[in-house]
Amino acid sequence: MSIEQYMRGVGQGARIAARQVAASSTAQRNAALLAVAAALDESRAQLAAANADDLARGRESGLDPALLDRLELTPVRIDAMLEGLRQVAALPDPVGSISDVNTMPSGIRVGHMRVPLGVIGIIYESRPNVTVEAASLCLKSGNATILRGGSEALASNCAIASCISRGLEASGLPATAVQVVDTADREAVGALITMAEFVDVIVPRGGKSLIERVSREARVPVIKHLDGVCHVYIDAGADHRMALEIAINAKTHRYGTCNTMETLLVAAAETALLPELATALRAAGVELRGCERCRTVVPDMLPAVEQDWFEEYLAPVLAVRVVEGLDEAMDHINHYGSRHTDSIVTRDHANAMRFLREVDSSSVMINASTRFADGFEYGLGAEIGISTDKLHARGPVGLEGLTSRKYVVFGEGQVRR
Amino acid sequence: MSIEQYMRGVGQGARIAARQVAASSTAQRNAALLAVAAALDESRAQLAAANADDLARGRESGLDPALLDRLELTPVRIDAMLEGLRQVAALPDPVGSISDVNTMPSGIRVGHMRVPLGVIGIIYESRPNVTVEAASLCLKSGNATILRGGSEALASNCAIASCISRGLEASGLPATAVQVVDTADREAVGALITMAEFVDVIVPRGGKSLIERVSREARVPVIKHLDGVCHVYIDAGADHRMALEIAINAKTHRYGTCNTMETLLVAAAETALLPELATALRAAGVELRGCERCRTVVPDMLPAVEQDWFEEYLAPVLAVRVVEGLDEAMDHINHYGSRHTDSIVTRDHANAMRFLREVDSSSVMINASTRFADGFEYGLGAEIGISTDKLHARGPVGLEGLTSRKYVVFGEGQVRR
Repeated sequence: MSIEQYMRGVGQGARIAARQVAASSTAQRNAALLAVAAALDESRAQLAAANADDLARGRESGLDPALLDRLELTPVRIDAMLEGLRQVAALPDPVGSISDVNTMPSGIRVGHMRVPLGVIGIIYESRPNVTVEAASLCLKSGNATILRGGSEALASNCAIASCISRGLEASGLPATAVQVVDTADREAVGALITMAEFVDVIVPRGGKSLIERVSREARVPVIKHLDGVCHVYIDAGADHRMALEIAINAKTHRYGTCNTMETLLVAAAETALLPELATALRAAGVELRGCERCRTVVPDMLPAVEQDWFEEYLAPVLAVRVVEGLDEAMDHINHYGSRHTDSIVTRDHANAMRFLREVDSSSVMINASTRFADGFEYGLGAEIGISTDKLHARGPVGLEGLTSRKYVVFGEGQVRR
Repeated sequence: MSIEQYMRGVGQGARIAARQVAASSTAQRNAALLAVAAALDESRAQLAAANADDLARGRESGLDPALLDRLELTPVRIDAMLEGLRQVAALPDPVGSISDVNTMPSGIRVGHMRVPLGVIGIIYESRPNVTVEAASLCLKSGNATILRGGSEALASNCAIASCISRGLEASGLPATAVQVVDTADREAVGALITMAEFVDVIVPRGGKSLIERVSREARVPVIKHLDGVCHVYIDAGADHRMALEIAINAKTHRYGTCNTMETLLVAAAETALLPELATALRAAGVELRGCERCRTVVPDMLPAVEQDWFEEYLAPVLAVRVVEGLDEAMDHINHYGSRHTDSIVTRDHANAMRFLREVDSSSVMINASTRFADGFEYGLGAEIGISTDKLHARGPVGLEGLTSRKYVVFGEGQVRR
């Protein structure tokens, strides 16, 4: 059987399962989530053995230690998977809610019903806990899922998949509601992202090159973000204490996350705070790269070059630029940014509201650290990813982002005149 | 200059204009809509002359009389364009509204702000009034537009475009906020649907072959529907009078529209209504094609073949099938339908709610004619098209479908712990 035939079989199974999952009750899907948790809990020995195989293969093939670490399924990480399943089971069910019902002049009543998207394809890299996390969010929101993890985690993912199948079947849902692609063949990804008759949306999670490839080749809609070139702009008249706290937090709270600040913009009127900021950031080990005007105030900054303004460092490096004021800051963000998350520190209400409206990013903030751009911090309960696309979901994507709304019409025999 | 260079110039102009339109006030955009109406009103002579050129060329090249009729800009049609502009100006502005603001445990307040999509590309066929209609909806919702009409309407569209430019400039908005592609070269469409850096979404309006080509080749998201294979299902126990009225209206109110019923499904318990239905539909000139069970009740129906169940006739033809009950009806709709609009006629509440939930179409109705699936009938004020896609807008797409929601965060200096 060719990879394409295999994947079409997976797709057909998912499409059939999707109708059953969409029609299932909230109670049944919650029971399935808890049954998956129980199955994983009972299978700790099998999970550990499969994971040990992956780790051994990884070490043999010279996998990077950081990747080996992410690949490892420790007892603590398994506990976290179980806890995640319970939390998702406890979240409110978005499916089936009817809203905005209004009566029209014809007498029909028209509203929206929230419904699952159908079949969701997830493509991700080495962390096997994503298998459970993604499957649980898709199942809770009434969708079927096809999961394609990294080849280095194949044994772990298959062991997890068998627990998920048992949980699903124990609750009367079809085992094909969640399927893990059990081949390391890279062609499987190509098939998954092009079979539009079986897959409604693809969510790639991983490095930029994976996401770029998926976006370029997909014939199915993709929910994604490519870069997180996030900015903090310190406005003229901003509170220096607040500005310093937010800038330092946005840069140093974590370096490797997509909502970390990569460029700081400072209004010309507030360059007096640059020396204190530079001292604090350097104390935290951050390398600073400044524009010329920055370097007249803090002469020992490295000079920033054009490419720095586009860069997502994901590292203890920060580009710093002095701008005349709000307009130049927004021009900079809209030109160099990645439409992810940008924040203004200001005391000026009109400037705050202009920034909110005119900065074209998925999250726009006033007086808060960019690090808040996160499904948990936004109260979504969980997050399947972050979208910087404009259609459908924008920003952190929770359960609601895995659903859509259709029109429902309640009539009493009305016909059109 | 190559077509591609020309289109990139158009795209760049639109991208720059989009920021200005997005930042403009509601009053300014409404003033522009009314100024466009005034400019069209003043230019009736030029519009008539340009349209006469198109019509003459159309006649010479042997254009179909139906197409010639659609191409014609009569004084009544110009009046309708002006009235349309005034109506769009009077609609509420969706842009900038902030909703669902909640305070999180960290103290930040998180909500959604509705914002324009950016640059919208519209590809359409011969009716020149679409130029004004589409431009007005995009402008009202804060977007820039690139319009690509049919080559047979090029002179008319260019004359309309010059009025639009004057209206925009009179109100202080950039003329490039609405651009009409003024070349008949077909490569222009190819360029428009692939320049993702300048175009955020494409809305094709026209025949199925146009929409198929656009969907296949686009590298930009497309809002579209391909088919309208709409169903009415008459449930066991349905009121015969209501069932007959809805079925007859859904089929005969208009034949060429996408929300017209193409297949009627009748529960086996209600086949007694088939003779009266057949008589009424035949009196209206509708050809009936029935399944075998239908033909045992109404023997002189033509036999339906497999292909009939997939067919969007757009003509006085109806396929009729007897099904066992609700489950078989939903199986039929989900298999043969096009996810456009489907309606159940029933007195059974549980069946009504199952149909509403389990039929995976953009509009699902209880006891109403499928002909109601329309932006005006749904209270959207206007409609740019109908979407049968699952992501973003689903069903009739009004102003809100031309916007998206970003996250906005209101803080008072919060940082992430």
